[in-house]
Amino acid sequence: MSLIVLGTVALDSIKTPSGVKPELLGGSASHFCMSARLFNKIHLASVVGQDFPNKHRQFLKKKGIDLTSLIEQEGKTFHWKGEYKKGDFNNAITLKTELGVLMNYTPQVAASQRKIPNVFLANFDPDIQEYFLKLMDKPKFVGMDTMNLWIDIKKKSVKRLIKKVDLFVANDGEACALTGESNLIKAAKHLRSLGPKLIVVKKGENGVLFYSDKFMFSFPAYPVEQVIDPTGAGDTFAGGLMGYLSKSPKITEATLKKAVIYATTLASFNVEGFAMAKTAPLTLAMVHQRMKKLVKFISV
Amino acid sequence: MSLIVLGTVALDSIKTPSGVKPELLGGSASHFCMSARLFNKIHLASVVGQDFPNKHRQFLKKKGIDLTSLIEQEGKTFHWKGEYKKGDFNNAITLKTELGVLMNYTPQVAASQRKIPNVFLANFDPDIQEYFLKLMDKPKFVGMDTMNLWIDIKKKSVKRLIKKVDLFVANDGEACALTGESNLIKAAKHLRSLGPKLIVVKKGENGVLFYSDKFMFSFPAYPVEQVIDPTGAGDTFAGGLMGYLSKSPKITEATLKKAVIYATTLASFNVEGFAMAKTAPLTLAMVHQRMKKLVKFISV
Repeated sequence: MSLIVLGTVALDSIKTPSGVKPELLGGSASHFCMSARLFNKIHLASVVGQDFPNKHRQFLKKKGIDLTSLIEQEGKTFHWKGEYKKGDFNNAITLKTELGVLMNYTPQVAASQRKIPNVFLANFDPDIQEYFLKLMDKPKFVGMDTMNLWIDIKKKSVKRLIKKVDLFVANDGEACALTGESNLIKAAKHLRSLGPKLIVVKKGENGVLFYSDKFMFSFPAYPVEQVIDPTGAGDTFAGGLMGYLSKSPKITEATLKKAVIYATTLASFNVEGFAMAKTAPLTLAMVHQRMKKLVKFISV
Repeated sequence: MSLIVLGTVALDSIKTPSGVKPELLGGSASHFCMSARLFNKIHLASVVGQDFPNKHRQFLKKKGIDLTSLIEQEGKTFHWKGEYKKGDFNNAITLKTELGVLMNYTPQVAASQRKIPNVFLANFDPDIQEYFLKLMDKPKFVGMDTMNLWIDIKKKSVKRLIKKVDLFVANDGEACALTGESNLIKAAKHLRSLGPKLIVVKKGENGVLFYSDKFMFSFPAYPVEQVIDPTGAGDTFAGGLMGYLSKSPKITEATLKKAVIYATTLASFNVEGFAMAKTAPLTLAMVHQRMKKLVKFISV
Protein backbone atom coordinates (compact mmCIF):
# COMPACT_ATOMS: atom_id res chain seq x y z
CA MET A 1 0.00 0.00 0.00
CA SER A 2 1.63 3.21 -1.16
CA LEU A 3 2.73 6.21 0.87
CA ILE A 4 2.40 9.95 0.40
CA VAL A 5 4.46 12.55 2.19
CA LEU A 6 3.79 16.24 2.66
CA GLY A 7 6.83 18.30 3.58
CA THR A 8 9.28 20.86 2.33
CA VAL A 9 11.49 20.71 -0.73
CA ALA A 10 14.35 23.11 -0.21
CA LEU A 11 17.66 24.37 -1.40
CA ASP A 12 20.08 23.99 1.49
CA SER A 13 23.35 25.87 1.82
CA ILE A 14 25.31 24.06 4.46
CA LYS A 15 28.53 24.76 6.32
CA THR A 16 30.10 22.06 8.48
CA PRO A 17 33.68 21.45 9.66
CA SER A 18 34.01 19.32 6.48
CA GLY A 19 33.24 22.13 4.06
CA VAL A 20 30.71 24.52 2.56
CA LYS A 21 28.10 23.44 0.02
CA PRO A 22 25.68 25.86 -1.65
CA GLU A 23 22.12 25.10 -2.79
CA LEU A 24 21.92 21.36 -2.35
CA LEU A 25 18.60 19.59 -2.72
CA GLY A 26 17.10 19.39 0.77
CA GLY A 27 13.89 19.76 2.75
CA SER A 28 11.98 17.39 4.99
CA ALA A 29 10.02 15.72 2.18
CA SER A 30 13.05 15.23 -0.09
CA HIS A 31 15.08 13.50 2.61
CA PHE A 32 12.06 11.44 3.62
CA CYS A 33 11.56 10.26 0.03
CA MET A 34 15.20 9.37 -0.53
CA SER A 35 14.93 6.89 2.34
CA ALA A 36 11.31 5.67 2.01
CA ARG A 37 11.74 4.94 -1.74
CA LEU A 38 13.77 1.86 -0.82
CA PHE A 39 10.61 0.18 0.49
CA ASN A 40 7.63 1.49 -1.44
CA LYS A 41 6.22 3.76 -4.13
CA ILE A 42 6.43 7.27 -2.66
CA HIS A 43 4.31 10.25 -3.62
CA LEU A 44 5.62 13.69 -2.75
CA ALA A 45 3.40 16.69 -2.03
CA SER A 46 5.17 20.02 -1.78
CA VAL A 47 5.94 23.28 -3.53
CA VAL A 48 8.96 24.76 -5.28
CA GLY A 49 9.62 28.09 -6.99
CA GLN A 50 10.41 28.84 -10.59
CA ASP A 51 14.11 28.79 -9.75
CA PHE A 52 13.99 25.11 -8.74
CA PRO A 53 16.70 23.43 -10.83
CA ASN A 54 15.38 20.93 -13.32
CA LYS A 55 18.23 18.57 -12.40
CA HIS A 56 16.77 18.18 -8.90
CA ARG A 57 13.34 17.42 -10.34
CA GLN A 58 14.83 14.85 -12.71
CA PHE A 59 16.89 13.37 -9.90
CA LEU A 60 13.79 12.79 -7.75
CA LYS A 61 11.92 11.28 -10.70
CA LYS A 62 14.82 8.99 -11.49
CA LYS A 63 14.67 7.76 -7.90
CA GLY A 64 11.09 6.68 -8.54
CA ILE A 65 9.38 9.45 -6.59
CA ASP A 66 5.96 10.45 -7.91
CA LEU A 67 5.99 14.25 -8.33
CA THR A 68 2.36 14.71 -9.41
CA SER A 69 1.67 16.88 -6.36
CA LEU A 70 4.95 18.76 -6.31
CA ILE A 71 3.64 22.04 -7.58
CA GLU A 72 5.60 24.97 -8.96
CA GLN A 73 4.57 28.46 -7.92
CA GLU A 74 5.72 31.94 -8.81
CA GLY A 75 8.58 32.99 -6.58
CA LYS A 76 11.67 31.41 -5.10
CA THR A 77 12.15 27.92 -3.69
CA PHE A 78 12.45 27.68 0.11
CA HIS A 79 16.11 28.26 0.98
CA TRP A 80 17.79 27.32 4.25
CA LYS A 81 21.31 28.34 5.11
CA GLY A 82 22.79 26.70 8.16
CA GLU A 83 25.94 25.75 9.97
CA TYR A 84 27.17 23.01 12.31
CA LYS A 85 30.13 23.74 14.56
CA LYS A 86 32.79 21.14 15.31
CA GLY A 87 31.70 18.62 17.91
CA ASP A 88 28.14 19.90 18.05
CA PHE A 89 26.24 18.19 15.29
CA ASN A 90 23.07 18.14 17.35
CA ASN A 91 22.57 21.88 17.02
CA ALA A 92 22.05 23.39 13.60
CA ILE A 93 22.67 27.12 13.56
CA THR A 94 20.29 28.80 11.13
CA LEU A 95 22.10 31.56 9.26
CA LYS A 96 19.27 32.48 6.90
CA THR A 97 15.75 31.26 6.11
CA GLU A 98 14.04 32.43 2.93
CA LEU A 99 10.56 30.95 2.94
CA GLY A 100 9.82 32.00 -0.64
CA VAL A 101 6.93 29.98 -2.11
CA LEU A 102 6.20 28.34 1.26
CA MET A 103 4.50 31.58 2.28
CA ASN A 104 1.63 31.18 -0.18
CA TYR A 105 1.42 27.41 -0.44
CA THR A 106 -1.92 25.66 -0.30
CA PRO A 107 -1.37 21.90 -0.50
CA GLN A 108 -2.85 20.05 -3.44
CA VAL A 109 -3.37 16.36 -4.00
CA ALA A 110 -4.25 14.81 -7.33
CA ALA A 111 -7.60 13.00 -7.30
CA SER A 112 -5.75 9.76 -8.05
CA GLN A 113 -3.74 10.16 -4.82
CA ARG A 114 -6.53 10.88 -2.34
CA LYS A 115 -7.01 7.28 -1.41
CA ILE A 116 -3.37 6.56 -0.66
CA PRO A 117 -3.64 4.74 2.69
CA ASN A 118 -0.34 5.81 4.30
CA VAL A 119 0.33 9.47 4.98
CA PHE A 120 3.32 11.15 6.51
CA LEU A 121 3.24 14.80 7.50
CA ALA A 122 6.91 15.73 7.53
CA ASN A 123 8.10 18.85 9.29
CA PHE A 124 6.02 21.81 8.06
CA ASP A 125 3.63 24.47 9.38
CA PRO A 126 1.05 22.43 11.38
CA ASP A 127 -1.86 24.29 9.78
CA ILE A 128 -0.61 23.26 6.36
CA GLN A 129 -0.11 19.70 7.63
CA GLU A 130 -3.71 19.63 8.88
CA TYR A 131 -5.07 21.13 5.65
CA PHE A 132 -3.27 18.41 3.71
CA LEU A 133 -4.58 15.65 5.94
CA LYS A 134 -8.15 16.85 5.29
CA LEU A 135 -7.56 16.46 1.55
CA MET A 136 -6.85 12.77 2.00
CA ASP A 137 -9.67 10.24 1.93
CA LYS A 138 -9.72 8.21 5.14
CA PRO A 139 -6.04 7.24 5.33
CA LYS A 140 -5.31 4.01 7.23
CA PHE A 141 -2.12 5.15 8.90
CA VAL A 142 -0.91 8.70 9.53
CA GLY A 143 2.45 9.77 10.92
CA MET A 144 3.75 13.24 11.68
CA ASP A 145 6.89 15.10 12.60
CA THR A 146 7.28 18.72 13.69
CA MET A 147 10.00 21.02 14.98
CA ASN A 148 10.67 23.43 17.83
CA LEU A 149 9.74 26.47 15.74
CA TRP A 150 6.12 25.25 15.37
CA ILE A 151 5.91 24.15 18.99
CA ASP A 152 7.02 27.67 19.96
CA ILE A 153 4.75 29.68 17.69
CA LYS A 154 1.86 27.32 16.88
CA LYS A 155 1.57 24.95 19.83
CA LYS A 156 -2.22 24.87 19.67
CA SER A 157 -2.15 23.82 16.02
CA VAL A 158 0.42 21.12 16.74
CA LYS A 159 -1.72 19.79 19.60
CA ARG A 160 -4.86 19.82 17.47
CA LEU A 161 -3.13 17.90 14.70
CA ILE A 162 -1.39 15.37 16.95
CA LYS A 163 -4.80 14.04 18.05
CA LYS A 164 -5.42 12.86 14.51
CA VAL A 165 -2.27 10.84 13.89
CA ASP A 166 -1.25 7.26 14.67
CA LEU A 167 2.48 7.84 14.88
CA PHE A 168 4.30 10.86 16.27
CA VAL A 169 8.00 11.25 15.58
CA ALA A 170 9.96 13.90 17.46
CA ASN A 171 13.45 14.50 18.66
CA ASP A 172 14.17 14.69 22.38
CA GLY A 173 14.15 18.49 22.55
CA GLU A 174 10.82 18.70 20.71
CA ALA A 175 9.25 15.97 22.86
CA CYS A 176 10.19 17.90 26.00
CA ALA A 177 9.17 21.30 24.58
CA LEU A 178 5.75 20.04 23.53
CA THR A 179 4.98 18.31 26.83
CA GLY A 180 6.83 20.46 29.34
CA GLU A 181 8.48 17.31 30.70
CA SER A 182 12.23 17.05 31.23
CA ASN A 183 12.30 13.26 31.54
CA LEU A 184 12.02 11.48 28.18
CA ILE A 185 9.94 8.56 29.42
CA LYS A 186 7.47 10.97 30.96
CA ALA A 187 7.51 13.06 27.77
CA ALA A 188 6.77 9.96 25.67
CA LYS A 189 3.86 8.97 27.95
CA HIS A 190 2.56 12.51 27.82
CA LEU A 191 2.74 12.51 24.00
CA ARG A 192 0.82 9.23 23.99
CA SER A 193 -1.91 10.89 26.07
CA LEU A 194 -2.26 13.57 23.38
CA GLY A 195 -3.48 10.98 20.88
CA PRO A 196 -0.94 8.99 18.84
CA LYS A 197 -0.72 5.29 19.71
CA LEU A 198 2.92 5.09 18.64
CA ILE A 199 5.59 7.51 19.87
CA VAL A 200 9.13 7.63 18.51
CA VAL A 201 11.63 9.94 20.20
CA LYS A 202 14.85 10.42 18.24
CA LYS A 203 17.96 11.23 20.23
CA GLY A 204 20.46 11.83 17.41
CA GLU A 205 23.74 10.04 18.06
CA ASN A 206 22.18 8.57 21.22
CA GLY A 207 19.63 6.52 19.34
CA VAL A 208 15.93 6.25 19.74
CA LEU A 209 13.16 5.55 22.25
CA PHE A 210 9.90 3.92 21.20
CA TYR A 211 6.79 4.10 23.38
CA SER A 212 3.33 2.54 23.12
CA ASP A 213 0.77 1.29 25.63
CA LYS A 214 1.82 -2.33 25.34
CA PHE A 215 5.59 -2.10 25.01
CA MET A 216 8.52 0.25 24.78
CA PHE A 217 12.05 -0.22 23.51
CA SER A 218 15.24 1.70 22.89
CA PHE A 219 18.17 1.25 20.50
CA PRO A 220 21.48 3.11 20.24
CA ALA A 221 22.47 4.81 16.98
CA TYR A 222 24.84 3.16 14.52
CA PRO A 223 28.40 4.18 15.46
CA VAL A 224 29.43 6.75 12.86
CA GLU A 225 33.00 7.91 13.20
CA GLN A 226 32.99 10.76 10.72
CA VAL A 227 29.86 12.88 10.71
CA ILE A 228 29.89 15.15 7.65
CA ASP A 229 26.43 16.72 7.61
CA PRO A 230 23.47 15.67 9.77
CA THR A 231 20.93 17.78 7.83
CA GLY A 232 17.91 15.64 7.08
CA ALA A 233 18.92 12.75 9.35
CA GLY A 234 15.59 12.92 11.19
CA ASP A 235 13.63 12.97 7.92
CA THR A 236 15.72 10.10 6.57
CA PHE A 237 14.92 8.20 9.78
CA ALA A 238 11.20 8.91 9.39
CA GLY A 239 11.36 7.81 5.74
CA GLY A 240 12.85 4.46 6.68
CA LEU A 241 10.35 3.99 9.50
CA MET A 242 7.24 4.86 7.48
CA GLY A 243 8.58 3.24 4.32
CA TYR A 244 9.01 -0.11 6.02
CA LEU A 245 5.74 0.13 8.01
CA SER A 246 3.76 1.01 4.87
CA LYS A 247 4.80 -2.32 3.35
CA SER A 248 4.11 -4.36 6.48
CA PRO A 249 0.79 -6.20 6.44
CA LYS A 250 0.42 -5.79 10.21
CA ILE A 251 2.06 -3.45 12.70
CA THR A 252 3.41 -5.57 15.55
CA GLU A 253 6.21 -5.18 18.08
CA ALA A 254 8.53 -7.10 15.74
CA THR A 255 7.57 -4.94 12.75
CA LEU A 256 8.11 -1.75 14.72
CA LYS A 257 11.51 -2.90 15.96
CA LYS A 258 12.57 -3.79 12.44
CA ALA A 259 11.27 -0.45 11.14
CA VAL A 260 13.28 1.42 13.78
CA ILE A 261 16.39 -0.60 12.90
CA TYR A 262 15.95 0.27 9.22
CA ALA A 263 15.38 3.92 10.13
CA THR A 264 18.48 3.99 12.35
CA THR A 265 20.61 2.43 9.63
CA LEU A 266 19.39 4.87 6.99
CA ALA A 267 19.97 7.88 9.23
CA SER A 268 23.56 6.73 9.76
CA PHE A 269 24.19 6.88 6.02
CA ASN A 270 22.62 10.32 5.83
CA VAL A 271 25.07 11.92 8.27
CA GLU A 272 28.10 10.54 6.43
CA GLY A 273 27.78 12.92 3.49
CA PHE A 274 26.39 16.33 2.54
CA ALA A 275 22.66 16.39 1.81
CA MET A 276 21.78 13.13 0.01
CA ALA A 277 25.29 12.25 -1.14
CA LYS A 278 25.19 8.96 0.78
CA THR A 279 21.49 8.12 0.74
CA ALA A 280 20.86 8.70 -2.97
CA PRO A 281 23.12 5.83 -4.14
CA LEU A 282 21.73 3.34 -1.60
CA THR A 283 20.21 0.02 -2.52
CA LEU A 284 18.36 -2.19 -0.07
CA ALA A 285 21.28 -4.66 -0.25
CA MET A 286 23.66 -1.94 0.97
CA VAL A 287 21.27 -1.10 3.78
CA HIS A 288 21.02 -4.75 4.83
CA GLN A 289 24.79 -5.04 4.99
CA ARG A 290 25.05 -2.19 7.48
CA MET A 291 21.95 -3.35 9.34
CA LYS A 292 23.72 -6.63 10.13
CA LYS A 293 26.57 -4.67 11.73
CA LEU A 294 24.11 -2.52 13.65
CA VAL A 295 22.25 -5.54 14.99
CA LYS A 296 25.56 -7.09 16.12
CA PHE A 297 26.52 -3.79 17.76
CA ILE A 298 23.31 -3.54 19.79
CA SER A 299 22.50 -7.21 20.49
CA VAL A 300 22.43 -8.21 24.13
CA MET B 1 38.80 -14.00 43.12
CA SER B 2 38.25 -11.02 45.35
CA LEU B 3 38.28 -7.34 44.48
CA ILE B 4 39.76 -4.28 46.13
CA VAL B 5 38.75 -0.71 45.38
CA LEU B 6 40.59 2.51 46.11
CA GLY B 7 38.43 5.62 46.06
CA THR B 8 36.87 8.28 48.21
CA VAL B 9 34.57 7.87 51.16
CA ALA B 10 32.66 11.09 51.59
CA LEU B 11 29.86 12.90 53.31
CA ASP B 12 27.62 14.28 50.58
CA SER B 13 25.16 17.12 51.06
CA ILE B 14 22.87 17.00 48.09
CA LYS B 15 20.17 19.26 46.73
CA THR B 16 17.94 18.07 43.89
CA PRO B 17 14.44 19.05 42.77
CA SER B 18 13.26 16.24 45.10
CA GLY B 19 14.76 17.69 48.26
CA VAL B 20 17.81 18.53 50.31
CA LYS B 21 19.79 15.90 52.22
CA PRO B 22 22.75 16.73 54.45
CA GLU B 23 25.79 14.53 55.10
CA LEU B 24 24.81 11.28 53.45
CA LEU B 25 27.36 8.51 53.04
CA GLY B 26 28.93 8.97 49.60
CA GLY B 27 32.19 8.93 47.69
CA SER B 28 33.37 6.92 44.70
CA ALA B 29 34.51 3.89 46.71
CA SER B 30 31.36 3.71 48.85
CA HIS B 31 29.03 3.69 45.84
CA PHE B 32 31.28 1.21 44.07
CA CYS B 33 31.19 -1.16 47.04
CA MET B 34 27.41 -0.95 47.47
CA SER B 35 27.05 -2.32 43.96
CA ALA B 36 30.05 -4.69 43.68
CA ARG B 37 29.19 -6.40 47.00
CA LEU B 38 26.35 -8.20 45.24
CA PHE B 39 28.87 -10.27 43.31
CA ASN B 40 31.99 -10.68 45.39
CA LYS B 41 33.90 -10.00 48.59
CA ILE B 42 34.91 -6.35 48.34
CA HIS B 43 37.82 -4.69 50.13
CA LEU B 44 37.73 -0.92 50.48
CA ALA B 45 40.84 1.26 50.67
CA SER B 46 40.24 4.88 51.60
CA VAL B 47 40.47 7.45 54.35
CA VAL B 48 38.00 9.17 56.65
CA GLY B 49 38.33 11.79 59.38
CA GLN B 50 37.61 11.56 63.05
CA ASP B 51 34.15 12.96 62.42
CA PHE B 52 33.13 9.98 60.30
CA PRO B 53 29.91 8.68 61.86
CA ASN B 54 30.21 5.23 63.33
CA LYS B 55 26.81 4.35 61.85
CA HIS B 56 28.28 4.67 58.35
CA ARG B 57 31.19 2.40 59.26
CA GLN B 58 28.81 -0.16 60.76
CA PHE B 59 26.56 0.10 57.73
CA LEU B 60 29.41 -0.70 55.33
CA LYS B 61 30.53 -3.62 57.53
CA LYS B 62 27.01 -4.97 57.66
CA LYS B 63 26.97 -4.95 53.88
CA GLY B 64 29.96 -7.29 53.96
CA ILE B 65 32.59 -4.72 52.92
CA ASP B 66 36.07 -5.37 54.31
CA LEU B 67 37.23 -2.13 55.93
CA THR B 68 40.75 -3.24 56.94
CA SER B 69 42.29 -0.53 54.71
CA LEU B 70 39.78 2.20 55.45
CA ILE B 71 42.00 4.31 57.64
CA GLU B 72 41.01 7.07 60.00
CA GLN B 73 43.16 10.19 60.11
CA GLU B 74 43.15 13.36 62.13
CA GLY B 75 40.90 15.94 60.51
CA LYS B 76 37.58 16.00 58.76
CA THR B 77 36.08 13.53 56.33
CA PHE B 78 35.92 14.63 52.67
CA HIS B 79 32.71 16.61 52.25
CA TRP B 80 31.02 17.39 48.93
CA LYS B 81 28.08 19.72 48.65
CA GLY B 82 26.33 19.72 45.31
CA GLU B 83 23.16 20.48 43.46
CA TYR B 84 21.26 19.21 40.43
CA LYS B 85 18.81 21.54 38.69
CA LYS B 86 15.50 20.33 37.28
CA GLY B 87 15.88 18.59 33.95
CA ASP B 88 19.66 18.62 34.05
CA PHE B 89 20.74 15.58 36.01
CA ASN B 90 23.85 15.16 33.87
CA ASN B 91 25.50 18.23 35.38
CA ALA B 92 26.29 18.30 39.06
CA ILE B 93 26.90 21.82 40.34
CA THR B 94 29.53 21.75 43.07
CA LEU B 95 28.59 24.18 45.82
CA LYS B 96 31.42 23.31 48.20
CA THR B 97 34.31 20.85 48.37
CA GLU B 98 36.12 20.29 51.66
CA LEU B 99 38.95 17.86 50.97
CA GLY B 100 39.77 17.38 54.65
CA VAL B 101 41.75 14.19 55.23
CA LEU B 102 42.13 13.58 51.49
CA MET B 103 44.85 16.25 51.49
CA ASN B 104 47.27 14.17 53.53
CA TYR B 105 46.26 10.66 52.55
CA THR B 106 48.85 8.07 51.67
CA PRO B 107 47.12 4.85 50.68
CA GLN B 108 47.73 1.78 52.75
CA VAL B 109 47.03 -1.86 52.06
CA ALA B 110 47.15 -4.59 54.65
CA ALA B 111 49.76 -7.28 53.88
CA SER B 112 46.92 -9.78 53.61
CA GLN B 113 45.34 -7.75 50.80
CA ARG B 114 48.34 -7.21 48.55
CA LYS B 115 47.70 -10.27 46.48
CA ILE B 116 44.05 -9.48 45.72
CA PRO B 117 43.94 -10.09 41.96
CA ASN B 118 41.24 -7.57 40.94
CA VAL B 119 41.83 -3.89 41.54
CA PHE B 120 39.62 -0.92 40.79
CA LEU B 121 40.92 2.61 41.04
CA ALA B 122 37.76 4.63 41.50
CA ASN B 123 37.74 8.37 40.91
CA PHE B 124 40.60 9.93 42.92
CA ASP B 125 43.78 11.96 42.43
CA PRO B 126 45.68 9.96 39.74
CA ASP B 127 48.94 10.16 41.70
CA ILE B 128 47.22 8.52 44.66
CA GLN B 129 45.67 5.93 42.33
CA GLU B 130 49.13 5.13 40.95
CA TYR B 131 50.71 4.98 44.39
CA PHE B 132 48.04 2.51 45.45
CA LEU B 133 48.51 0.35 42.37
CA LYS B 134 52.22 0.05 43.20
CA LEU B 135 51.34 -1.33 46.64
CA MET B 136 49.51 -4.22 45.02
CA ASP B 137 51.36 -7.41 44.13
CA LYS B 138 50.94 -8.17 40.42
CA PRO B 139 47.17 -7.79 40.12
CA LYS B 140 45.56 -9.81 37.33
CA PHE B 141 42.99 -7.24 36.30
CA VAL B 142 43.01 -3.49 36.92
CA GLY B 143 40.26 -1.01 36.12
CA MET B 144 40.20 2.74 36.61
CA ASP B 145 37.87 5.71 36.49
CA THR B 146 38.73 9.40 36.68
CA MET B 147 36.98 12.75 36.35
CA ASN B 148 37.29 16.05 34.46
CA LEU B 149 39.02 17.77 37.38
CA TRP B 150 42.01 15.40 37.14
CA ILE B 151 42.07 15.52 33.35
CA ASP B 152 42.23 19.32 33.63
CA ILE B 153 44.89 19.65 36.31
CA LYS B 154 46.80 16.33 36.16
CA LYS B 155 46.47 15.11 32.59
CA LYS B 156 50.04 13.75 32.52
CA SER B 157 49.43 11.66 35.62
CA VAL B 158 46.16 10.32 34.21
CA LYS B 159 47.90 9.38 30.96
CA ARG B 160 50.77 7.70 32.81
CA LEU B 161 48.35 5.65 34.89
CA ILE B 162 46.03 4.70 32.05
CA LYS B 163 48.89 2.77 30.40
CA LYS B 164 48.89 0.37 33.33
CA VAL B 165 45.23 -0.61 33.42
CA ASP B 166 43.16 -3.22 31.58
CA LEU B 167 39.83 -1.42 31.77
CA PHE B 168 39.16 2.29 31.53
CA VAL B 169 35.75 3.62 32.51
CA ALA B 170 34.86 7.22 31.69
CA ASN B 171 31.82 9.28 30.94
CA ASP B 172 31.43 10.87 27.52
CA GLY B 173 32.68 14.30 28.59
CA GLU B 174 35.79 12.81 30.21
CA ALA B 175 36.52 10.58 27.21
CA CYS B 176 36.42 13.62 24.93
CA ALA B 177 38.39 15.85 27.31
CA LEU B 178 41.17 13.28 27.71
CA THR B 179 41.54 12.56 23.99
CA GLY B 180 40.62 15.88 22.41
CA GLU B 181 38.11 14.06 20.20
CA SER B 182 34.51 15.21 19.82
CA ASN B 183 33.25 11.94 18.30
CA LEU B 184 32.74 9.19 20.90
CA ILE B 185 33.83 6.31 18.65
CA LYS B 186 37.04 8.16 17.85
CA ALA B 187 37.48 9.01 21.52
CA ALA B 188 37.07 5.32 22.47
CA LYS B 189 39.64 4.25 19.86
CA HIS B 190 42.00 6.95 21.05
CA LEU B 191 41.61 5.78 24.67
CA ARG B 192 42.39 2.22 23.53
CA SER B 193 45.62 3.50 21.95
CA LEU B 194 46.65 4.90 25.34
CA GLY B 195 46.83 1.40 26.80
CA PRO B 196 43.67 -0.22 28.20
CA LYS B 197 42.31 -3.15 26.21
CA LEU B 198 38.74 -2.50 27.35
CA ILE B 199 37.08 0.91 27.10
CA VAL B 200 33.70 1.71 28.62
CA VAL B 201 32.17 5.11 27.91
CA LYS B 202 29.17 5.94 30.09
CA LYS B 203 26.60 8.33 28.63
CA GLY B 204 24.26 8.75 31.62
CA GLU B 205 20.63 8.42 30.61
CA ASN B 206 21.81 7.64 27.07
CA GLY B 207 23.45 4.39 28.04
CA VAL B 208 26.91 3.07 27.39
CA LEU B 209 29.44 2.37 24.63
CA PHE B 210 31.93 -0.48 24.92
CA TYR B 211 35.05 -0.61 22.75
CA SER B 212 37.80 -3.20 22.31
CA ASP B 213 39.97 -4.29 19.37
CA LYS B 214 37.80 -7.27 18.54
CA PHE B 215 34.29 -5.97 19.13
CA MET B 216 32.24 -3.03 20.27
CA PHE B 217 28.69 -2.71 21.51
CA SER B 218 26.25 -0.19 22.89
CA PHE B 219 23.21 -0.41 25.16
CA PRO B 220 20.67 2.22 26.18
CA ALA B 221 20.09 2.99 29.86
CA TYR B 222 17.19 1.49 31.79
CA PRO B 223 14.21 3.86 31.43
CA VAL B 224 13.91 5.63 34.77
CA GLU B 225 10.92 7.93 35.02
CA GLN B 226 11.70 9.65 38.28
CA VAL B 227 15.34 10.53 38.81
CA ILE B 228 15.87 11.57 42.43
CA ASP B 229 19.64 11.85 42.79
CA PRO B 230 22.23 10.66 40.27
CA THR B 231 25.20 11.09 42.63
CA GLY B 232 27.33 7.95 42.47
CA ALA B 233 25.56 6.45 39.44
CA GLY B 234 28.87 6.12 37.58
CA ASP B 235 30.54 4.47 40.59
CA THR B 236 27.57 2.15 41.04
CA PHE B 237 27.90 1.26 37.36
CA ALA B 238 31.62 0.56 37.77
CA GLY B 239 30.92 -1.55 40.85
CA GLY B 240 28.49 -3.75 38.95
CA LEU B 241 30.86 -4.05 36.02
CA MET B 242 33.96 -4.94 38.04
CA GLY B 243 32.00 -6.98 40.57
CA TYR B 244 30.61 -9.27 37.91
CA LEU B 245 33.88 -9.46 35.93
CA SER B 246 35.86 -10.32 39.06
CA LYS B 247 33.73 -13.45 39.48
CA SER B 248 33.91 -14.47 35.82
CA PRO B 249 36.45 -17.19 35.08
CA LYS B 250 37.16 -15.73 31.65
CA ILE B 251 36.49 -12.31 30.14
CA THR B 252 34.69 -12.85 26.85
CA GLU B 253 32.32 -10.77 24.72
CA ALA B 254 29.37 -12.49 26.42
CA THR B 255 30.80 -11.85 29.90
CA LEU B 256 31.43 -8.19 29.11
CA LYS B 257 27.93 -7.70 27.74
CA LYS B 258 26.43 -9.31 30.83
CA ALA B 259 28.66 -7.19 33.08
CA VAL B 260 27.50 -4.01 31.31
CA ILE B 261 23.86 -5.09 31.64
CA TYR B 262 24.35 -5.66 35.38
CA ALA B 263 26.12 -2.31 35.66
CA THR B 264 23.34 -0.51 33.76
CA THR B 265 20.67 -2.09 35.93
CA LEU B 266 22.46 -1.18 39.15
CA ALA B 267 23.01 2.42 38.04
CA SER B 268 19.27 2.73 37.37
CA PHE B 269 18.50 1.84 40.98
CA ASN B 270 21.09 4.33 42.19
CA VAL B 271 19.42 7.34 40.55
CA GLU B 272 16.01 6.48 41.99
CA GLY B 273 16.92 7.54 45.51
CA PHE B 274 19.24 9.83 47.45
CA ALA B 275 22.76 8.45 47.94
CA MET B 276 22.44 4.69 48.55
CA ALA B 277 18.78 4.65 49.54
CA LYS B 278 17.93 2.32 46.65
CA THR B 279 21.16 0.37 46.22
CA ALA B 280 21.73 -0.53 49.86
CA PRO B 281 18.60 -2.74 50.18
CA LEU B 282 19.26 -4.56 46.89
CA THR B 283 19.57 -8.31 46.62
CA LEU B 284 20.74 -10.07 43.48
CA ALA B 285 17.19 -11.38 43.00
CA MET B 286 15.88 -7.80 42.85
CA VAL B 287 18.58 -6.90 40.35
CA HIS B 288 17.69 -9.91 38.17
CA GLN B 289 14.05 -8.90 38.12
CA ARG B 290 14.85 -5.47 36.71
CA MET B 291 17.52 -6.91 34.40
CA LYS B 292 14.84 -8.99 32.69
CA LYS B 293 12.87 -5.82 31.98
CA LEU B 294 16.00 -4.06 30.73
CA VAL B 295 16.85 -6.92 28.38
CA LYS B 296 13.32 -6.88 27.01
CA PHE B 297 13.54 -3.10 26.57
CA ILE B 298 16.77 -3.24 24.55
CA SER B 299 16.40 -6.54 22.66
CA VAL B 300 16.34 -6.28 18.88
